[in-house]
Amino acid sequence: MELLKQLCQIHAPSGNEVQLTQFLLNYIEQNKANWRVTPQVLAGEDFQDCIILVFGQPRTAIFAHIDSIGFTVRYGRQLVRIGGPDTETGYQLVGQDSQGPIACTLQVSEEDGSLQYEFEREIDRGTELVFACNFRETQDTVQSCYLDNRLGVYNALRVAETLENGAIVFSCWEEHKGGSVAYLARYLYDNYRVKQALISDITWVTDGVHPGQGVVISMRDSLIPRRSFVNKIISLAQQSHVSFQLEVEGAGGSDGKDLQQSDIPWDWCFVGAPEDNVHSPDEIVHKDDIDSMVALYQVLMREL
Amino acid sequence: MELLKQLCQIHAPSGNEVQLTQFLLNYIEQNKANWRVTPQVLAGEDFQDCIILVFGQPRTAIFAHIDSIGFTVRYGRQLVRIGGPDTETGYQLVGQDSQGPIACTLQVSEEDGSLQYEFEREIDRGTELVFACNFRETQDTVQSCYLDNRLGVYNALRVAETLENGAIVFSCWEEHKGGSVAYLARYLYDNYRVKQALISDITWVTDGVHPGQGVVISMRDSLIPRRSFVNKIISLAQQSHVSFQLEVEGAGGSDGKDLQQSDIPWDWCFVGAPEDNVHSPDEIVHKDDIDSMVALYQVLMREL
Amino acid sequence: MELLKQLCQIHAPSGNEVQLTQFLLNYIEQNKANWRVTPQVLAGEDFQDCIILVFGQPRTAIFAHIDSIGFTVRYGRQLVRIGGPDTETGYQLVGQDSQGPIACTLQVSEEDGSLQYEFEREIDRGTELVFACNFRETQDTVQSCYLDNRLGVYNALRVAETLENGAIVFSCWEEHKGGSVAYLARYLYDNYRVKQALISDITWVTDGVHPGQGVVISMRDSLIPRRSFVNKIISLAQQSHVSFQLEVEGAGGSDGKDLQQSDIPWDWCFVGAPEDNVHSPDEIVHKDDIDSMVALYQVLMREL
Repeated sequence: MELLKQLCQIHAPSGNEVQLTQFLLNYIEQNKANWRVTPQVLAGEDFQDCIILVFGQPRTAIFAHIDSIGFTVRYGRQLVRIGGPDTETGYQLVGQDSQGPIACTLQVSEEDGSLQYEFEREIDRGTELVFACNFRETQDTVQSCYLDNRLGVYNALRVAETLENGAIVFSCWEEHKGGSVAYLARYLYDNYRVKQALISDITWVTDGVHPGQGVVISMRDSLIPRRSFVNKIISLAQQSHVSFQLEVEGAGGSDGKDLQQSDIPWDWCFVGAPEDNVHSPDEIVHKDDIDSMVALYQVLMREL
Repeated sequence: MELLKQLCQIHAPSGNEVQLTQFLLNYIEQNKANWRVTPQVLAGEDFQDCIILVFGQPRTAIFAHIDSIGFTVRYGRQLVRIGGPDTETGYQLVGQDSQGPIACTLQVSEEDGSLQYEFEREIDRGTELVFACNFRETQDTVQSCYLDNRLGVYNALRVAETLENGAIVFSCWEEHKGGSVAYLARYLYDNYRVKQALISDITWVTDGVHPGQGVVISMRDSLIPRRSFVNKIISLAQQSHVSFQLEVEGAGGSDGKDLQQSDIPWDWCFVGAPEDNVHSPDEIVHKDDIDSMVALYQVLMREL
Repeated sequence: MELLKQLCQIHAPSGNEVQLTQFLLNYIEQNKANWRVTPQVLAGEDFQDCIILVFGQPRTAIFAHIDSIGFTVRYGRQLVRIGGPDTETGYQLVGQDSQGPIACTLQVSEEDGSLQYEFEREIDRGTELVFACNFRETQDTVQSCYLDNRLGVYNALRVAETLENGAIVFSCWEEHKGGSVAYLARYLYDNYRVKQALISDITWVTDGVHPGQGVVISMRDSLIPRRSFVNKIISLAQQSHVSFQLEVEGAGGSDGKDLQQSDIPWDWCFVGAPEDNVHSPDEIVHKDDIDSMVALYQVLMREL
């Protein structure tokens, strides 16, 4: 879990993911020689702060978003949300501006719910703040801010170790209305005719989805993927004997949304571990669900 | 109206339209030899569950969505909406899961409006339910669930009989945030330079639009099509002596939305019969409005 | 300010921008010979009612939307909004229908906020009404309806005079859910590999942004542009000695939204003067902020 812990501590709010991009490029450079297949690494200005890895002859792509929720500093100590963070007075926030590192406290107005920071000095306009990382591990669980989606990134890196044919996409802006998946998807389709996607992301513990009972195959959220593709995934999961659960939601979204609305006939499905305390500093995931997530991705990337 | 009745009975909620796709492919195969021009039929994996028919040298495309609203089974007897169905306790719902056919009843909570099914057994997670079809015909009207949009599909098939130059698109997911029109539109534009569209869909009876007074040309809904194209259509309608009405709405959408927001300079206009009891099992349309819909499409596909 | 005054008086609600398109094409034709570089003028059916000007070897494009907010006439004297106009009983509205010119009055229902017009006769269904223009100028300010975004258009035309390398895009539908930027952006990217954009539009006076203190660089609104691009612009602004202010917002959008969500890796930033009395007939902007807007655009188009 050392890799996951490192991932959770990196500052990468939507729109400013560059530190995580650099970490991943270094990690990939150092490790790819030990992977079963050495991937082609696509990055740089044409991909903004995103990365694509191409292994062999890809038929399916894994999309894992690298950005996180957070807050942008306005003026008069006001904060504006990046994505949809949980907000509670006292949450510790960290960042950096022209005057140096920042460790401050979130204040939620009891009157109108508006957000402010409490700090010894004024913070530069436009500075992003993220949750301070307190990574906790027990025998059964990991707990930290940003398991959503550093765990999805971790899953992709674990799957990379043995992947023979497939693509892995590290995308940006997912938590805040998207903005990279459309061009990443186009690149994969135009160059490799890939149009099957697995969304490597974290979902919610609900009445019907319980921690420790396996990775979740989401049959729908606010969007509805094509049923025949979802059925194929469920069928492969059943044959695999990996533990899994089925989710049916009316809300929530993912990088799948941008695939659904692209001008390419993508099939996609969200497959990921469930977490509790969503979008808070205390996101918690059962380790068994991480194991089944990696195991099911290995099967799906081979069989789809 | 036998064809319309058949169309209304087919299970095809957004995301799982495949039964209607198969019905249409069979119908087209059996009838196309009798049409004035035999179209090219485009279907298969690159089109997911959609179909494009190309007649002669197309300048304009008809878009008719084949999916319907409905409900997805969650757990604990909960239902999640597919699109925006009307909901009333007692509505009959039908579907099929691993244990066989289902005919159950909708329950709307008086407390919080949440939706459940009432049935003798638990239904598989992810099963789609649709309204049970009760097709009724009088001298002046047809009434059924899913006239929206099986009537738009029926109109397209009637227009196909005499169409010389044009395209007909049967699209998916329209009732639930879209997902096919972008790539269908791209295909038509890239291969045929088509960038004019008529949206063959059903609109609402309102203060300004009355049953039996003719097909509706919608000047706008939540989106605003280019005025010069709408004016051209109105002008052709006036010259045609087909009965029509003009609608101006602030809400509602259609496949036109995905054309408007595509990266192709499409001109589009919604042209369709008005119905009452929208998105309920009792949608009702005046037969004269169906006749004028078919007649106006014949004119527009020839003249635009 | 004579040019700005003319621009503010032209009828060009979203979807029916053609009169402003014609005005601009005439203006460009009459003036381009006096500009430092004579641009290529792209217009006509493939661009609907939009215009692109290409100067030299473009690296960056200016997007200035030409459409305005307004109202569409429904029936029974009802009005439907085009975009998000401010509404107050007594606002003067103008337009034209089959019976001739219209000058009428807006009525806002005290009961339910619904909108009607008051006029001596019924107005044709679908007629667009816009605010009557009352252009006012003092030593320090200009005031009129539609400074948003005729001032953004004016800025682009002023920058055109000395522009050596760059593109200027006059877009449609910005006030009403977009519909042109996606294809305009694709054209520029496919033909010139341009993927940097400045949004020449008008923002709001807020607690943190004050009239007369300089053009605004918006670090974010409802969307978040890539931070590294925004930082580059701020850095160039600092070196330039042009007065500017930084804005951080949680709401609002612009043509940048369609760039962000396109399948091209665009970097974009909103740079524009702030106004008070937003979307009303009385929009007011400080002249110093217009000057700094033009001056900063000149720097950015040269240095980016």
